[in-house]
Amino acid sequence: MILTVTLNAALDVTYTVERLHPHRTHRVQQVRQRAGGKGINVARVLRALGQPTVVTGLAGGRTGEAIREDLAVAGLPDELVPVAGESRRTVAVVSTQDGDATLFNEPGPRITETEWQRFLDRFVELATTAEVVVLSGSLPPGVPDDGYAHLVRIAAGLGSRTIVDAEGEPLRRAVAAGPDLVKPNAAELRATTGLDDPLDAAHRLQLAGARAVVVSLGADGLLAVDDEIWRAEPPEQLYGNPTGAGDACVAALATGLRGGTGWPELLRAATALSAAAVRCPLAGEFDEPTRRDLHTRVRVQQVDRTVSLP
Amino acid sequence: MILTVTLNAALDVTYTVERLHPHRTHRVQQVRQRAGGKGINVARVLRALGQPTVVTGLAGGRTGEAIREDLAVAGLPDELVPVAGESRRTVAVVSTQDGDATLFNEPGPRITETEWQRFLDRFVELATTAEVVVLSGSLPPGVPDDGYAHLVRIAAGLGSRTIVDAEGEPLRRAVAAGPDLVKPNAAELRATTGLDDPLDAAHRLQLAGARAVVVSLGADGLLAVDDEIWRAEPPEQLYGNPTGAGDACVAALATGLRGGTGWPELLRAATALSAAAVRCPLAGEFDEPTRRDLHTRVRVQQVDRTVSLP
Repeated sequence: MILTVTLNAALDVTYTVERLHPHRTHRVQQVRQRAGGKGINVARVLRALGQPTVVTGLAGGRTGEAIREDLAVAGLPDELVPVAGESRRTVAVVSTQDGDATLFNEPGPRITETEWQRFLDRFVELATTAEVVVLSGSLPPGVPDDGYAHLVRIAAGLGSRTIVDAEGEPLRRAVAAGPDLVKPNAAELRATTGLDDPLDAAHRLQLAGARAVVVSLGADGLLAVDDEIWRAEPPEQLYGNPTGAGDACVAALATGLRGGTGWPELLRAATALSAAAVRCPLAGEFDEPTRRDLHTRVRVQQVDRTVSLP
Repeated sequence: MILTVTLNAALDVTYTVERLHPHRTHRVQQVRQRAGGKGINVARVLRALGQPTVVTGLAGGRTGEAIREDLAVAGLPDELVPVAGESRRTVAVVSTQDGDATLFNEPGPRITETEWQRFLDRFVELATTAEVVVLSGSLPPGVPDDGYAHLVRIAAGLGSRTIVDAEGEPLRRAVAAGPDLVKPNAAELRATTGLDDPLDAAHRLQLAGARAVVVSLGADGLLAVDDEIWRAEPPEQLYGNPTGAGDACVAALATGLRGGTGWPELLRAATALSAAAVRCPLAGEFDEPTRRDLHTRVRVQQVDRTVSLP
């Protein structure tokens, strides 16, 4: 089983308006909402891939209830731990004229120390049966910066593999705890290490404790670093919604980690799935024909340690 | 007792962001929410004025629960009738840099015929003890355009005075039912009658059935028309948030109608209260020192029927 952790679970709300006019009043044409947060998006993709998955994290208030209701609709096993605060909403205002989105992310509820302890207890129970644990997304206020580091150590102690998709201080701390894989994108990697070259920066995270680093380079594909270096490129650039590409990539990596897949096939699958997610408007979804088509055409090659990347 | 009707009750959510950048992602700094919709805002002002008031209308779902919870906090007697759909939210994105607000109004739940009938039954019970009934704001999908007209006739039959603050077809229909007072603003009046001159347009509504028409002219004050014509002007223009001024005006008019106050004093009170509401960031609130100060300084004069207004 793959356990996905979403500490700052969200209700993702989409408002359709004709066009965004700052400082004016808009009549919202359509309101859609569904459970979100990176870990939950990863779980949606895992479920579509046929992987056994369980959702945990923190959720509270009426928004928390709406999140849980939507997980039930999606058929995702819900092991979210309740908190007293109100879970956050994210509001995406999408223009019907140009398809562009403007996003507003609420900060999320403040988590008390007692609630965090209660989550840790539940996490130990759940991680016991997890082959892979996925730690994705931001931490809500109140969860300590070493939150992911703590979870990585617990999971490793219980024999689970761990993937971390985070940024900033929570990522730096998690890396020091020795996760099996971290997946920053190029911007997060730069922000976390201060280094411009993705290969140098990935090596830095490896030296700091990560067993493997997979860097998503957007439309340019993926770079993987452990004791080898691999590079995967999609055959062509796909345009669309990049929001869910990172979560789809993490889902593919978790699937590969669970199956013991080697780099070439793992990167091929992750690149194809990320690109297929770009074709869908909602995070957690991907276009299956695109995935199948790209899977055979992704270029994967091993890179010499002395060659510097563009 | 003054009964305020809010058929499309809302949860008014305010997001504070540094600055609105279309097509970007915003971290919301602060989330505030409270019960809203014009009728509920009127009720807040009435309560602050010490007037006995009861809130009715339609509310449903988790948002409906949040609305009712906030009414309880505000000490407003809650006689909202439950519906199956989810009540609407309005989201105001306020920039900390320039104070400007961008608004997104959800359409509201679709009301079934059965729910509308159930509301009418409850309205008859509540209106029986109401001296004044205030009908404010938009109709949710499913409520017929003659909804306010219907309520005006029921209330009149029960001996209650009626005030309608609406626009478009629901206002036109309500006027034909002979309400005691309608309060359009200049733009609503123009949109409803097709006439540019507020005095001509007000006369048109009077001919169509309204016993009295009070037109809010924004910072220029109020114009009242029945068998007399009166004009009230604030001593100076106040700058701030105009959102709640109309609702404060309606609260003052309802109070005057209940007390049998004549035009000069009624308009003085309504103009001062509207201007005092402009000084507060939230609809339903007003600045009491401003109200007291302006009350003595508002200029009220009777207008000759032959004089045309600027």
